[in-house]
Amino acid sequence: MNDSILASLRQAIPALALKTAPADLEHYGRDWTRRWTPAPLAIALPDSIGQVQALVRWANAHGVAIVPSGGRTGLSGGAVASRGELVVSLERMNRVLGFDAVDRTLTVQPGAVLQTVQDAAREQGLAYPVDFGARGSCTIGGNIATNAGGIRVIRYGNTRDWIAGLKLVTGSGELLELGRSLVKDASGYDLRQLVIGAEGTLGIVVEATLRLADPPPPAQTMLLAVPSFEVLMDVFALFRGRLRLQAFEFLTDRGLEHVLAHGGQNPFDAVHPWYVLTEYDAAAEADQADALAVFEHAAEHGWVLDGVIANSEEQTSQLWRLREGITEATARYRPYKNDVSVRVAAMPAFLAEAQALLGASYPDFEVVWFGHIGDGNLHINVLQPDGSDDDEFLRQCAHVTELLAGLLQRHGGSISAEHGVGLLKKPYLSSSRSDADVVLMRAIRQAFDPRGIMNPGKIFD
Amino acid sequence: MNDSILASLRQAIPALALKTAPADLEHYGRDWTRRWTPAPLAIALPDSIGQVQALVRWANAHGVAIVPSGGRTGLSGGAVASRGELVVSLERMNRVLGFDAVDRTLTVQPGAVLQTVQDAAREQGLAYPVDFGARGSCTIGGNIATNAGGIRVIRYGNTRDWIAGLKLVTGSGELLELGRSLVKDASGYDLRQLVIGAEGTLGIVVEATLRLADPPPPAQTMLLAVPSFEVLMDVFALFRGRLRLQAFEFLTDRGLEHVLAHGGQNPFDAVHPWYVLTEYDAAAEADQADALAVFEHAAEHGWVLDGVIANSEEQTSQLWRLREGITEATARYRPYKNDVSVRVAAMPAFLAEAQALLGASYPDFEVVWFGHIGDGNLHINVLQPDGSDDDEFLRQCAHVTELLAGLLQRHGGSISAEHGVGLLKKPYLSSSRSDADVVLMRAIRQAFDPRGIMNPGKIFD
Repeated sequence: MNDSILASLRQAIPALALKTAPADLEHYGRDWTRRWTPAPLAIALPDSIGQVQALVRWANAHGVAIVPSGGRTGLSGGAVASRGELVVSLERMNRVLGFDAVDRTLTVQPGAVLQTVQDAAREQGLAYPVDFGARGSCTIGGNIATNAGGIRVIRYGNTRDWIAGLKLVTGSGELLELGRSLVKDASGYDLRQLVIGAEGTLGIVVEATLRLADPPPPAQTMLLAVPSFEVLMDVFALFRGRLRLQAFEFLTDRGLEHVLAHGGQNPFDAVHPWYVLTEYDAAAEADQADALAVFEHAAEHGWVLDGVIANSEEQTSQLWRLREGITEATARYRPYKNDVSVRVAAMPAFLAEAQALLGASYPDFEVVWFGHIGDGNLHINVLQPDGSDDDEFLRQCAHVTELLAGLLQRHGGSISAEHGVGLLKKPYLSSSRSDADVVLMRAIRQAFDPRGIMNPGKIFD
Repeated sequence: MNDSILASLRQAIPALALKTAPADLEHYGRDWTRRWTPAPLAIALPDSIGQVQALVRWANAHGVAIVPSGGRTGLSGGAVASRGELVVSLERMNRVLGFDAVDRTLTVQPGAVLQTVQDAAREQGLAYPVDFGARGSCTIGGNIATNAGGIRVIRYGNTRDWIAGLKLVTGSGELLELGRSLVKDASGYDLRQLVIGAEGTLGIVVEATLRLADPPPPAQTMLLAVPSFEVLMDVFALFRGRLRLQAFEFLTDRGLEHVLAHGGQNPFDAVHPWYVLTEYDAAAEADQADALAVFEHAAEHGWVLDGVIANSEEQTSQLWRLREGITEATARYRPYKNDVSVRVAAMPAFLAEAQALLGASYPDFEVVWFGHIGDGNLHINVLQPDGSDDDEFLRQCAHVTELLAGLLQRHGGSISAEHGVGLLKKPYLSSSRSDADVVLMRAIRQAFDPRGIMNPGKIFD
């Protein structure tokens, strides 16, 4: 049956590259979650918008489900193909197509890797400021699919804020040109915004035009040791009020220990319970003096136990590694990841309850926290003990996520801040979105994709 | 028949304020276009979300069309009620509900006047940075309905960029809470973005939470006289490259003359064909020296003929009046307004063709241009000659708009940059949006408003 379907696809689009080897099916059928068994029909690797359109039309005619696929660094199973779907990998559509100096935009294909885009912007004396640890392998198409956030959101916002235009092949095979790089356009609904964050359920992004920013001002990086989460918010308020922040991240002793075990270097002699990694504008000596004064103010109040300022690029990288290295250092435990957000103002109350809940519910598991204080975004990673049973581990994690979802609902938060809903968070969507919201989302999906072939089973489906 | 419908409404919501006097029907039935004869059924003035919901449910049950109504400063007829609709004025829901210092947000009712919002932000040491001439009478609900832009877009973006959350009563009477002030939320489609710019066709915004900014740095205001439009783009590139712009507006001799006739003061001795009004950061003396150097550079290249820098708050106001006073100074001619945009990079080519087209097509009418160079946004105001026939004037304007729409289509532009489509631009929507776009918009509208009672006849309906 698969053979005859693939024969039909080959006949419909003879020039289309297809992969069907078992190793390819496994490689392209999963993302960083490693929780579902990959089982795609095949991997299609179109090299043009025309091929994507032809593919989608063919899939409509044959009722074949499609999973759009970028760098597959997703953490919610949004790009997993475990039910015989056709994976449409955009990796051959990975070029930077053009730069416009007046509009200050970069036009790229969806498979362009984030790092490539950042480099291309830098070559033009500008910056694409969305940034996170997966920059070397994630793609712009995937970033758009989840409205990716990351470590610079406090200063530069999410991916949404940088999409000047995009081209989308809808689930019915229509090519839409949305946004079109217009700064001002009040001619009807902004459909571009629907596509950003839709996790590939409305269609396949086949081109994106990105707005670029001035390069960030020279920055200084500081690591702080903090005695408790309670004072973290005070430290944040103090720093935000007095410095121009580019990043304000936190981590705990648990995360640090994993990174140290993987070759990270501890700048402090002692171990502390909480850490803040912050970066702020420091173009002039006066800025650096301000930062020192702010640090001293915090120290006098007992809000920080120790601190270090990076004095070289190398030391800056070492400090960042302590934060960005956590994902890699804990990857072998295949962590169950929660990625939640609340309003920044709701953070202290939410966190107090969340800590109590997780402490009571996960006595046997190691939990590694980190996140983006300034965005109200918390990453909770539950490590799977070596040799434990997969299903039992997931059952317990799902149970706690259920409780966490209830907590989020009470605090007006979201079960997915920046990873997307995918397969992993689908059971908890109702904690973050009302029934009326979901009814509307389904209707919109139906309009873009009447046969329901675009990434079915994800988000709410 | 109207009497019995209104009796039913009074019975359904006894506490609802209603106005039916002829003067009220005229006042609330029109906007700044003054081109359609107001003919609403009545004016409802709800004072709570509950009353709005009850109203919308009643309107559904009775098949009554609703026109949501704010300050009615719109320029495309989006708030016009000329077909027996029930106007729902939000003027009694005009309060600032709260401020959150950690989230840096202001929560307001939809009828809050922009100026009131700006003042409330200022009282908290922050800024709501969206700004334009109608600030004293337009409302936040109306700003959201058209994704209002204005004079600070080059620095601060459009209304969309400042909406942290909104509550919407949909066309079917459901209350949605969208955005919820979360900085990061990847839990499904961002429906909030659909509502922004939907011109009241999806429902009634009943509450908005606005993000606030740091107060803008101290600025200096400069007026430049420029010999031709061609060099305007060079002047823009020069100024944008060397100064931190807060505004960059242009106007022509025509607009200036009208303002001068209305009491504006000309800072120059001579009359010049083109003017730029720009505002840039000038916190330090070095910034002011930079600005002078930039001006001198432009003068040496023959790009500017004269210039003046405001040296007092009073002079700053006088210079701004030359730009912002145009709308008021020309209002008595009931101008036919085009509000178009192209990519900034496409501006010179588009404008050369547009100038030729308008010069050939409007030999008998005075055309006043002004706009926002940095946003690619041009306002073209055709003044109606005294004593001329309304219908004939509009026929000619519609004909030229048709040609202009064709030009915009070729240049990838929009027939409405910031005024919205409303009734006025509806015939030209296809110049800016594809058939496939419109099919999707209709389907989305159908999902939010199954009976089609929300502002029918506007945008695409």
